[in-house]
Amino acid sequence: MATYDANTDPSLHGTAVQDEHVEETGALISSSKVKGTSVYNSVGDDLGTIHDVMIDKRSGRVAYAVMSFGGFLGIGEKYHPLPWNVLTYDEDKGGYNIDLSTEQLRGAPNYSSDELRYFGDRQENERVSNYYGGLGYPPLI
Amino acid sequence: MATYDANTDPSLHGTAVQDEHVEETGALISSSKVKGTSVYNSVGDDLGTIHDVMIDKRSGRVAYAVMSFGGFLGIGEKYHPLPWNVLTYDEDKGGYNIDLSTEQLRGAPNYSSDELRYFGDRQENERVSNYYGGLGYPPLI
Repeated sequence: MATYDANTDPSLHGTAVQDEHVEETGALISSSKVKGTSVYNSVGDDLGTIHDVMIDKRSGRVAYAVMSFGGFLGIGEKYHPLPWNVLTYDEDKGGYNIDLSTEQLRGAPNYSSDELRYFGDRQENERVSNYYGGLGYPPLI
Repeated sequence: MATYDANTDPSLHGTAVQDEHVEETGALISSSKVKGTSVYNSVGDDLGTIHDVMIDKRSGRVAYAVMSFGGFLGIGEKYHPLPWNVLTYDEDKGGYNIDLSTEQLRGAPNYSSDELRYFGDRQENERVSNYYGGLGYPPLI
């Protein structure tokens, strides 16, 4: 399993992106830039896009990126909260890689559009944390 | 100066918000929810709204909320990156309070729409960090 390593994160060493919508230079990236970015699995399949970014109010940390999977896994439109440290930016692809198998994604906590509205309560948060903790990703919040 | 205290942050103890656009329950808030939220000063003036959220790629922390001030201070449409810990959510107002004087805001680093595109490089980041550090807010990234 690949874990996040800032020293080898190409997104930290890129040049300024010139785009009318977004801001991305150096150390920071805007949530606008993150949203809509594609997500790829380890064999290069385009799984979906980032729908939103969930912030822990207390610590000010990004807890999860919420990805919408447009039915790729045969489960309809579902939203997967993925811990920020599961994502690695791939400059060549211009998107995020996640190092999870299809099976791991199928088993991951996911929500319908309606359910997502209530995502973030402590119970759901614990569920997601526990799942990815079991895969070796330390909790972020 | 009021510093952020999670124990007294009313946004941490609120009930679920039911809204078709946003998700906010318990510990987490989505960047979609943060964006467009009003910002008030200590005497209740509506200064502007949150335009975007800047994330530190390495740590996954929210570094700044970028607020657009629609000319309230007589400086035209300007964008102010404000450290996340400068903001306190006020449930009654449904917006963020900032405990800064008009003079402190006037002197704070701000950017035009064009300049904002490049905000986030280490030099600008340091400039903002130093300014709010001087006001007693510890750096977030």
